[in-house]
Amino acid sequence: MTTPQFPARDIGRFSDRHIGPDAEAERRMLETVGYDSIDDLMDAAIPEAIRWTGTLDLPPAATEDEVIAELRALAARNTVAVSMIGLGYHGTHTPAVIRRNVLENPAWYTAYTPYQPEISQGRLEALLNFQTMVTDLTGLATANASMLDEGTAAAEAMTLARRAGKSSSPVYVVDADTLPQTIAVLATRAEPLGIEVRVVDLDTEPLPAQFFGLHLQYPGASGAVRDHTALVEAAHATGALVTVAADLLALTLLRPPGEIGVDIAAGTTQRFGVPMGFGGPHAGYLAVRGGLERMLPGRLVGVSRDAAGDPAYRLALQTREQHIRRERATSNICTAQVLLAVMAGMYAVYHGPAGLRAIAQRVHRRAATLDRLLRDLDDPQITLVHQAYFDTLLVQVPGRAERVLADAADRGVNLRLVDADHVGISCDETTTGAHLATVADVFARLSGSTSAGVPDAVEAPSALPAGLARTSDFLAHPVFRSHHSETAMLRYLRRLSDLDYALDRGMIPLGSCTMKLNATTEMEPVSWAEFADIHPFAPAAQTAGYAELVASLERWLAEVTGYDAVSVQPNAGSQGELAGLLAIRAYHRERGEAHRDVCLIPSSAHGTNAASAVMAGMRVVVVGCDGDGDVDLADLDRKIEAHRDTLAAIMVTYPSTHGVYEGGIATLCARVHDAGGQVYVDGANLNALLGFAKPGRFGADVSHLNLHKTFCIPHGGGGPGVGPVAVRAHLAPYLPGDPLGTDGPARPAVSAARYGSAGILPIPWAYLRLMGPEGLTRATGVAVLAANYVATRLRGHYPVLYAGNKGLVAHECILDLRGLTKATGVSVNDVAKRLIDYGFHAPTMSFPVAGTLMVEPTESEDLAELDRFCAAMIAIRAEIDQVGTGEWPTGDNPLANAPHTAVMVSGDDWPHPYPRSVAAYPGGVDRLGKYWPPVRRIDDAYGDRNLVCACPPPEAFEN
Amino acid sequence: MTTPQFPARDIGRFSDRHIGPDAEAERRMLETVGYDSIDDLMDAAIPEAIRWTGTLDLPPAATEDEVIAELRALAARNTVAVSMIGLGYHGTHTPAVIRRNVLENPAWYTAYTPYQPEISQGRLEALLNFQTMVTDLTGLATANASMLDEGTAAAEAMTLARRAGKSSSPVYVVDADTLPQTIAVLATRAEPLGIEVRVVDLDTEPLPAQFFGLHLQYPGASGAVRDHTALVEAAHATGALVTVAADLLALTLLRPPGEIGVDIAAGTTQRFGVPMGFGGPHAGYLAVRGGLERMLPGRLVGVSRDAAGDPAYRLALQTREQHIRRERATSNICTAQVLLAVMAGMYAVYHGPAGLRAIAQRVHRRAATLDRLLRDLDDPQITLVHQAYFDTLLVQVPGRAERVLADAADRGVNLRLVDADHVGISCDETTTGAHLATVADVFARLSGSTSAGVPDAVEAPSALPAGLARTSDFLAHPVFRSHHSETAMLRYLRRLSDLDYALDRGMIPLGSCTMKLNATTEMEPVSWAEFADIHPFAPAAQTAGYAELVASLERWLAEVTGYDAVSVQPNAGSQGELAGLLAIRAYHRERGEAHRDVCLIPSSAHGTNAASAVMAGMRVVVVGCDGDGDVDLADLDRKIEAHRDTLAAIMVTYPSTHGVYEGGIATLCARVHDAGGQVYVDGANLNALLGFAKPGRFGADVSHLNLHKTFCIPHGGGGPGVGPVAVRAHLAPYLPGDPLGTDGPARPAVSAARYGSAGILPIPWAYLRLMGPEGLTRATGVAVLAANYVATRLRGHYPVLYAGNKGLVAHECILDLRGLTKATGVSVNDVAKRLIDYGFHAPTMSFPVAGTLMVEPTESEDLAELDRFCAAMIAIRAEIDQVGTGEWPTGDNPLANAPHTAVMVSGDDWPHPYPRSVAAYPGGVDRLGKYWPPVRRIDDAYGDRNLVCACPPPEAFEN
Repeated sequence: MTTPQFPARDIGRFSDRHIGPDAEAERRMLETVGYDSIDDLMDAAIPEAIRWTGTLDLPPAATEDEVIAELRALAARNTVAVSMIGLGYHGTHTPAVIRRNVLENPAWYTAYTPYQPEISQGRLEALLNFQTMVTDLTGLATANASMLDEGTAAAEAMTLARRAGKSSSPVYVVDADTLPQTIAVLATRAEPLGIEVRVVDLDTEPLPAQFFGLHLQYPGASGAVRDHTALVEAAHATGALVTVAADLLALTLLRPPGEIGVDIAAGTTQRFGVPMGFGGPHAGYLAVRGGLERMLPGRLVGVSRDAAGDPAYRLALQTREQHIRRERATSNICTAQVLLAVMAGMYAVYHGPAGLRAIAQRVHRRAATLDRLLRDLDDPQITLVHQAYFDTLLVQVPGRAERVLADAADRGVNLRLVDADHVGISCDETTTGAHLATVADVFARLSGSTSAGVPDAVEAPSALPAGLARTSDFLAHPVFRSHHSETAMLRYLRRLSDLDYALDRGMIPLGSCTMKLNATTEMEPVSWAEFADIHPFAPAAQTAGYAELVASLERWLAEVTGYDAVSVQPNAGSQGELAGLLAIRAYHRERGEAHRDVCLIPSSAHGTNAASAVMAGMRVVVVGCDGDGDVDLADLDRKIEAHRDTLAAIMVTYPSTHGVYEGGIATLCARVHDAGGQVYVDGANLNALLGFAKPGRFGADVSHLNLHKTFCIPHGGGGPGVGPVAVRAHLAPYLPGDPLGTDGPARPAVSAARYGSAGILPIPWAYLRLMGPEGLTRATGVAVLAANYVATRLRGHYPVLYAGNKGLVAHECILDLRGLTKATGVSVNDVAKRLIDYGFHAPTMSFPVAGTLMVEPTESEDLAELDRFCAAMIAIRAEIDQVGTGEWPTGDNPLANAPHTAVMVSGDDWPHPYPRSVAAYPGGVDRLGKYWPPVRRIDDAYGDRNLVCACPPPEAFEN
Repeated sequence: MTTPQFPARDIGRFSDRHIGPDAEAERRMLETVGYDSIDDLMDAAIPEAIRWTGTLDLPPAATEDEVIAELRALAARNTVAVSMIGLGYHGTHTPAVIRRNVLENPAWYTAYTPYQPEISQGRLEALLNFQTMVTDLTGLATANASMLDEGTAAAEAMTLARRAGKSSSPVYVVDADTLPQTIAVLATRAEPLGIEVRVVDLDTEPLPAQFFGLHLQYPGASGAVRDHTALVEAAHATGALVTVAADLLALTLLRPPGEIGVDIAAGTTQRFGVPMGFGGPHAGYLAVRGGLERMLPGRLVGVSRDAAGDPAYRLALQTREQHIRRERATSNICTAQVLLAVMAGMYAVYHGPAGLRAIAQRVHRRAATLDRLLRDLDDPQITLVHQAYFDTLLVQVPGRAERVLADAADRGVNLRLVDADHVGISCDETTTGAHLATVADVFARLSGSTSAGVPDAVEAPSALPAGLARTSDFLAHPVFRSHHSETAMLRYLRRLSDLDYALDRGMIPLGSCTMKLNATTEMEPVSWAEFADIHPFAPAAQTAGYAELVASLERWLAEVTGYDAVSVQPNAGSQGELAGLLAIRAYHRERGEAHRDVCLIPSSAHGTNAASAVMAGMRVVVVGCDGDGDVDLADLDRKIEAHRDTLAAIMVTYPSTHGVYEGGIATLCARVHDAGGQVYVDGANLNALLGFAKPGRFGADVSHLNLHKTFCIPHGGGGPGVGPVAVRAHLAPYLPGDPLGTDGPARPAVSAARYGSAGILPIPWAYLRLMGPEGLTRATGVAVLAANYVATRLRGHYPVLYAGNKGLVAHECILDLRGLTKATGVSVNDVAKRLIDYGFHAPTMSFPVAGTLMVEPTESEDLAELDRFCAAMIAIRAEIDQVGTGEWPTGDNPLANAPHTAVMVSGDDWPHPYPRSVAAYPGGVDRLGKYWPPVRRIDDAYGDRNLVCACPPPEAFEN
């Protein structure tokens, strides 16, 4: 008899690298929590009604090398062609120093959103550079810290115009020469809000009499460069606001929107060094004129001051939009595209104003040269439609456009098929003379010429209208003039990342954020040209690898969630919510129940839920929670009864935002269904379910997932996120579709690209492939074990709020500080900042319950780190007691003064009633490798009162 | 008329990224130095006799993207096959977390050798891990911090045995089952030293009566595992020392050398996660039993204590070997392979003892399974030679070995051709069941069977001799048991790198070390599989890309130096020196002048020069220097006269180690030539010559270059280095050749692999290709300008020692502190350590002149960084004056106490007569992003008295 000698993955099992605790640690943790096995624990924690005990139907786990080989094979099925398609996606040279030290550097990509600004000064400065770049180039007053893409940025501009404008007209005029995918996203967003998008050819048609806003593209999608001054004046005369979707590279040469009175600018910064990635992720941008800054959606970085009075960065105006407006919100935007915004901003830092202008000039010269080469063919059947352009030519070739495209594709060049008679050709900084020669030769053959001219020998006049030349300076701040050598750039990037705390330093136990390992093997393929350098509108024959990757990922995600269909298009959780609710809306309408417009939302829900519902054209009705934090089923019944005929949906998070497996979830689903409503389960907490319960099986109709949580896409300092929407079969026809319209009218476009942030989908693909069914299931079990371990160890020091079955929490636990705060004056904020001194990122503060900390350790933290955290929390409890007993005064103690900077603890004076050593090295803090926050506690209110959202002058930092 | 529209590289000119100062900065620097242009400056600085004014015959500069594309094309001409060749080079899985965060992380690869231990604690700890791994696995007492490769490690073991042994016999017995390339390197090294290498088949032949040392391979090159106990005893009985070249992976299962009384172990750690790289770089190792530790060549990391009494790492026993022995040295080793040693050590940290053992067991099972599959063929013409093996099978296939190799190669698998009748097959951790199936199938077809068995269904007994099983524990230190999850590993790597200061933080102005930019574009190709995963003995048809890369690099290096031929084989500068001197030696011998054995060396020379001369069988005669630091031509004449008949060579550095273009160099060359000697110009300072002078044209016969200086290979914290040797035509026949002997007997092997550290040759290739003739020339000019700028700015504060033509220095300048030291007691060491507080790595201390600092800024530092350095030096001068005036006491001032740690400046007590702020934030130090050294000044003598060279127990670090 023979026995198998090579048990699969006896060595190299990735799940043992992903999951922190090993078998011995797991045993000790179980002992502390009081269970014999993870299965026992999970059986006790999860309601039997939803417990799923099958084995996930996924391929068995593969080793890291096997997965890399499989991804290499998929990548090889994509074709990296010369892209001259344009339409908002351009080839670009990512400076290698930025690729390696930002995109491929865990210090940048494993960072969280800078909600704790004292430990986020590096990326806040990088984002301020980004904002300054956008405002300088657009000529507007204020820009936010990035948007998801150009399409959604344009949609946010539309709703901003509606909020801010004086016109009561529902009409939003969109220039016909706008990117088609932008028009699709505008249409998706407009309909539920009662906005009428009217596409008008402004070259030939007049503006309507009434409209609340006007959207222009500059340069146009066709490449045309127009002077929009008269249109802006006309729009303003009717009380409408004007948005210009502008190409930032073109704005280095062309008069910027802000100089002709435009109110809003929106667009993308992709061509500033961010690979196309088959559609994303890239950083969109949104900028507004003075007076509109407080209406800007998304995140805005501003300058404030710290406890020592020194300048310090933080997110400005945080108490707005979905955070406070909830039911009345008009934007559900949470995530930005921080990692990509950092890259784009650094591209501007590295090239500086002169470099950017030189790049733009070269791009323009490329286009002008091609223009000249085509003219030289002297063929009346090959003509240019527009005489004024920046980088894109619209070529009229009656009846032969498809042939031109095919010929060019055969030569490795992708052009844009506009229609049967027109071809678009777009140049970018990667366009070479050889590329031009190839394209010219394609046309020459079409024309019957033997050969075209030689690009490098052609003199071509500028085709930029002289009257639109930019005369104003830009990027005058020293940061854009100081880091032009690679050495200087490298050091700047290192310095900024050193100011920050990310997962590569220690635990980030943020409840509801699932800050787990972003493994290198998952990240590496993102940099491969075969994934990075693909245009989203490249021919299908060139993207077979992506197609298979997306198809298998969607299939696997459907399997783990128990749904029937998935779309990866939404490029943030908020967009997934919107897509899911739009599917519900469409479903009701299709059944003749368009009047169903009430969305029930528990009072504990994340603000985004309500904002998404409003955006989907629904009315929000809040359902209360009971004393245990669960949805109050009696109140649910009352609300269902009150809105039985108009009930559209309920949105709940499971496990709840309180981190508890609510026992009533199955009942809740049944009751909503009985009343004709649909059940939306927010997948934010999926890390507590995978392998143990499937929302699609326990009653939900739709969920969005957060691939940047459970599925290991790194948080990137606040984006990219990916928020696929998963639905049961009856909703599948309404999933998002191709923004170019190839999927039919039922399918809305929630992102500008068909597969959203396709460029980072290799990450969750690799995660699922590496972990396999057993690995994923064990990860969930260990995540829940870790949360219960922390809860058990800290329960004697801080009350643990809410616990479900048998006193167990799910994957996170809430520590209640309200009693301590009342008794001692020490706030959750004090504890959060004091944790920095101990070498930790704070847990989630005051969400979902004010005055609490929510801790989510995840499965990736090993026992040593969990114990280090528990020890810190216990030590802090003792410090709180020292305040409570009056040993330390309320206003001057290690908690109130936290975090302590190196400058503070090494100051010549030390007026505090506790020693420096307690300030600097409390507990067992690493004396050699201590992380020092660069600034003291930041005064948020000061910054909001004195709003500064661009780089301050260097003098501001002088002591 | 048409004009070219695309001036090549108007944007994207790499030299503008590599060179720090831009045009405006250059103008200001020239103004300070007093010249109108760089050409004027260089004309003044360089003696007219050697000034070369042509244009380098190199391809014009290409952009970064063009160079990446060219390297991709070269890479595509290499074939990544399944390697089962063995012979000391094995496939290995580099853990992705280690690849990304060590090999691809500037914080690790741009670091310098840890001569300033206070700012090198991270890599010193990593090296201590490496040493502990080697000592634990070999069972010996002490290991050094790595060797260049197994061949040179074996050679160092040989000379160590000669130094340490009692036998006067010149015979060194080498087991015939030793790696052939090791035997070649031993032969090269033995001959000039009068050692007779005697290769003996110890299975069949007796040991000779007298010999001073014995070299054994374990397991043998053939794969055989033998019990060497009796041979060790027999050797010891004659007074000989025994070296075992052992495979560390095998030692996790086999009784280690130390447990059978072996004196020395040598070998490679390549298979611990370091890619094969067509031969290198990898970390060799050398370990010795107790009693021999003070005779170990190379670098040794040890534990000492700092000024606060806390444990701290530093290089131990530094005052030995070439540093003090010079003329009597027996090793010229300077460089280690730190970056690769860090990787190998981290591989052990990540896998831990259980993981390493599991890997070894799987490797062995693979081999045993293949054994079984071949036996199952039951073909008497296919037999195994050895029954006891670890990972390698020696298969006898009479007359058909070449056919087997060809068949396997056709199927993508490389085997070893031992001879016409024998094939070697080696398994490693990358070997899969599919690979075994392929190999078995090749033999099955040979045998006429239709198919072989299925590997995964085969039961195979162990072929490890039971009597040789390892019973002892290893890697018991907690560091090898704590970082097994990727998260934990990532944080450990980050923490260690954060302790250190590298080029990514700021300037490292080390004279004679040329710490310039290591550009990302130069580094990226090193990670590509087509360069990384190639066995050095792969068939030539599979390595055409490497062949072209090496050929063009050698051609370009010859062009820039003015020589006729270059060999890139030497994998360190020291090996280049040896290769160059061996060429001179062979040249004289060939001409019947074997008696020429005197090597003249100026008194200012680096100690390595003398050590190399001794190793090449020469006698060193020192030539004095005059008051200006130049070679004393009168003394030269005297020495030539005294040794006219026996003069072999002179070795000089140019520009001199004093950083001066000596005017007499042409004269010197002529006089030596007239006396029949050869001129060796040490190329260490080539960064001051490129494009302006060519040693091969101004009289030199041979040079070695340091690719890790002028040609941008990063220093890696102390290696890898590459030291090509360049010669004029008459010496070309004696350049290094293939260690496997394919180049004929005249060509010595100075490294184990034909092209040495081939895996990193893409770096200098890319540098030359990116810079082009103009870029390289401008880099030299700016490097010289920068040194003169610093000299000019600091001359008023510190005397600048030595200056050549018109008061100009070359690319570095010497600041003389002797007067200040005498007046104030402040030493160069104090200034060097104080520079840490200001955020700098110290310049070179007391070389070439005691009591001085030698500053080499290089062309990569921009003016802001040069000014920051000058400001720090000027501020320190003011501090010295405060000591001089008695304001601060001699023993307790910011200089004497430097560097100051965060722990120190935030201590509860502050007993010093200067404020904490002066200690912590002198001058304009970055208050937010300050680099803090983790330890205070380290006591070298204490560590040498109490030698500890393995990881200390964690308790040692408790406060």
